[in-house]
Amino acid sequence: MEKNIAVIWGDCSSPEIVKQTIRVLDKVAEKYGHTFNYTDAAMGGEAIDKYGDPLPQHELDKCLAADSVLLGAVGGPKWEGLPGEQRPEKGLLRLRAGMGLYSNNRPAKIWPQLAPASPLKPEIVAQGIDFIIVRELIGGVYFGKHETHTLENGEKQAIDSMPYSEHEIERIGRIGFETAQKRRKKLCCVDKANVLDTSRLWRSVMHRLQAEYPDVEYSEMFVDNCAMQIVKNPAQFDVIVTENMFGDILSDEASMITGSIGMIPSSSLGDGTRGLYEPIHGSAPDIAGRDIVNPTACILSAAMMLRYSFGMAEEADAIENAVNKVLDKGLRTADNMSEGCTCLGCTAMGDAILAEI
Amino acid sequence: MEKNIAVIWGDCSSPEIVKQTIRVLDKVAEKYGHTFNYTDAAMGGEAIDKYGDPLPQHELDKCLAADSVLLGAVGGPKWEGLPGEQRPEKGLLRLRAGMGLYSNNRPAKIWPQLAPASPLKPEIVAQGIDFIIVRELIGGVYFGKHETHTLENGEKQAIDSMPYSEHEIERIGRIGFETAQKRRKKLCCVDKANVLDTSRLWRSVMHRLQAEYPDVEYSEMFVDNCAMQIVKNPAQFDVIVTENMFGDILSDEASMITGSIGMIPSSSLGDGTRGLYEPIHGSAPDIAGRDIVNPTACILSAAMMLRYSFGMAEEADAIENAVNKVLDKGLRTADNMSEGCTCLGCTAMGDAILAEI
Ligand SMILES: CC(C)[C@H](C(=O)O)[C@@H](O)C(=O)O
Ligand SMILES: CC(C)[C@H](C(=O)O)[C@@H](O)C(=O)O
Repeated sequence: MEKNIAVIWGDCSSPEIVKQTIRVLDKVAEKYGHTFNYTDAAMGGEAIDKYGDPLPQHELDKCLAADSVLLGAVGGPKWEGLPGEQRPEKGLLRLRAGMGLYSNNRPAKIWPQLAPASPLKPEIVAQGIDFIIVRELIGGVYFGKHETHTLENGEKQAIDSMPYSEHEIERIGRIGFETAQKRRKKLCCVDKANVLDTSRLWRSVMHRLQAEYPDVEYSEMFVDNCAMQIVKNPAQFDVIVTENMFGDILSDEASMITGSIGMIPSSSLGDGTRGLYEPIHGSAPDIAGRDIVNPTACILSAAMMLRYSFGMAEEADAIENAVNKVLDKGLRTADNMSEGCTCLGCTAMGDAILAEI
Repeated sequence: MEKNIAVIWGDCSSPEIVKQTIRVLDKVAEKYGHTFNYTDAAMGGEAIDKYGDPLPQHELDKCLAADSVLLGAVGGPKWEGLPGEQRPEKGLLRLRAGMGLYSNNRPAKIWPQLAPASPLKPEIVAQGIDFIIVRELIGGVYFGKHETHTLENGEKQAIDSMPYSEHEIERIGRIGFETAQKRRKKLCCVDKANVLDTSRLWRSVMHRLQAEYPDVEYSEMFVDNCAMQIVKNPAQFDVIVTENMFGDILSDEASMITGSIGMIPSSSLGDGTRGLYEPIHGSAPDIAGRDIVNPTACILSAAMMLRYSFGMAEEADAIENAVNKVLDKGLRTADNMSEGCTCLGCTAMGDAILAEI
């Protein structure tokens, strides 16, 4: 097969991980007889520097013209002082919206080899951590109206609004149920229905959908309780579906309990097969240019792209198995080091994964 | 001194913990020569059953007439099917607003005797967990407009709005700085300033205040990152100040890492000294009526009342020291049991604490 991939190299240490990921993709192409064509697209800090805009239309167009998009991570201290509209994150939000990517899939899965790095007690880790947060990505307070005005008494007031309509909830709700069907068949909808109208609308849509997925065990949980349960008993979760802001908070918490945030990929999809694939970690400005950043989450994001956008399950398995073998051999990057393991730099980790494919 | 305390007995297992708390307060009164007069006020499920309203004005008036309010916990399955406005939680929200309690103080402190119950690894716990979340309590999305309407295409849309004005931020920001001044002098403001206008307004107010508290080391963190850091490295925090919804989520997460949510009290204050004191745990419907619920968080809430509303520091110390001694003796309720300890019921735990005062 021939596939066109738009590549957003990202900022700070991001190009280092993207470079290793492309080497891995090329190796897969060679081994399985595919052709991957890459088009560079600028977003975030790079785009601000080049065009004064974190995502100019011409760069978004490159992403829309591709079969899928690979992204490292954007942002860094250099761009932090800029006003809201011109910040790197704004480019990411506009990319998600511009590509219609309403479904963000964030796995929280512990690699047995890295279990000791989890901040949780071994007894809890031993019960298993393997769940997915399905986060709504282009609705809610991220995309509602934001306004700041001056009240009559002269003080300023800001108002952010959090809108959700039924079709936005239904499409992500279905992804939640369908994801659960392919796994342990448990779906938990997380919200704050004791306070928010949007949460109550979520529940009413979810109740309607529930009838269509009788094989899925469906439950509901308040977001504050969920923040506790993820730490107390993560084994209880299979698939969590939730709105944008809650998904942001809970998926970061969930990634941390795996102890290896440098290992966690993510996919963002919309109605078609074109997706955006990126590690959940940031651009790690503090270690940029030192060839020590962990490329694995980005490489695993590419594996997700092969699986979900290109239907290449075997190829995706090949990458994931390679990562597994590398871990089995005790090879680690600095972020994951533990006693008795060998510490590799970014390029050397890329080499090690390549060698197993 | 003579003090009038409004007592909200609460629902399900709550009256059991309130009963033990009143015994403790009476003992303190006797020992230190005070008089505490109690007036029962109904809120939550009890008020719904009696008056069809989770907080009728006459019950709120009782709270406003008192020197302070002691609350157990409200809610339970019995009232879960009710529409939003009539649910027990709505009584709590109206009580907070009606009393003007904008500042909710939630300590996350590990009791050394209970450290093994933390879900975190001993290495992390050993670094110390002792921070306070100062949560804004009567603004933001909890008290913004909630609306659900039908769009032109026939589908429903809900919108929750999250307003904050400068004076609301300033008064809670000051509490944050002042709380830090009395402790390790570190304040972290948690927000989502890369997305929300309200967060950007928070930051601008906090920057203005910062100049007035030069002895406090001030920092800022995004809420998603904070959800990670609480699990990864809780020792970094001294005081966190944040808006209502983020405070709800983060304080529950923080309470869980202490491993003993049955031990965590909270205070809610406004401009004067009249406050609302309640455990952060819920009404534990599953164990109601069995005399096994842990009364300690409610008893420690009463200690906070003595300290913050009545200026009775010595009396508060007496209660807290009593709890400490009881733990030292290996006495526990079922929720905190560990090997080698003695398991007590609710009344027996009340007895044990009383005996140490
Ligand atoms: C950078 C930021 C706007 C973004 C978000 O909040 O969605 C990030 O935290 C994420 O989770 O991808
Ligand atoms: C019951 C609920 C409305 C309340 C809140 O969200 O404030 C509770 O979770 C709390 O934290 O006191």
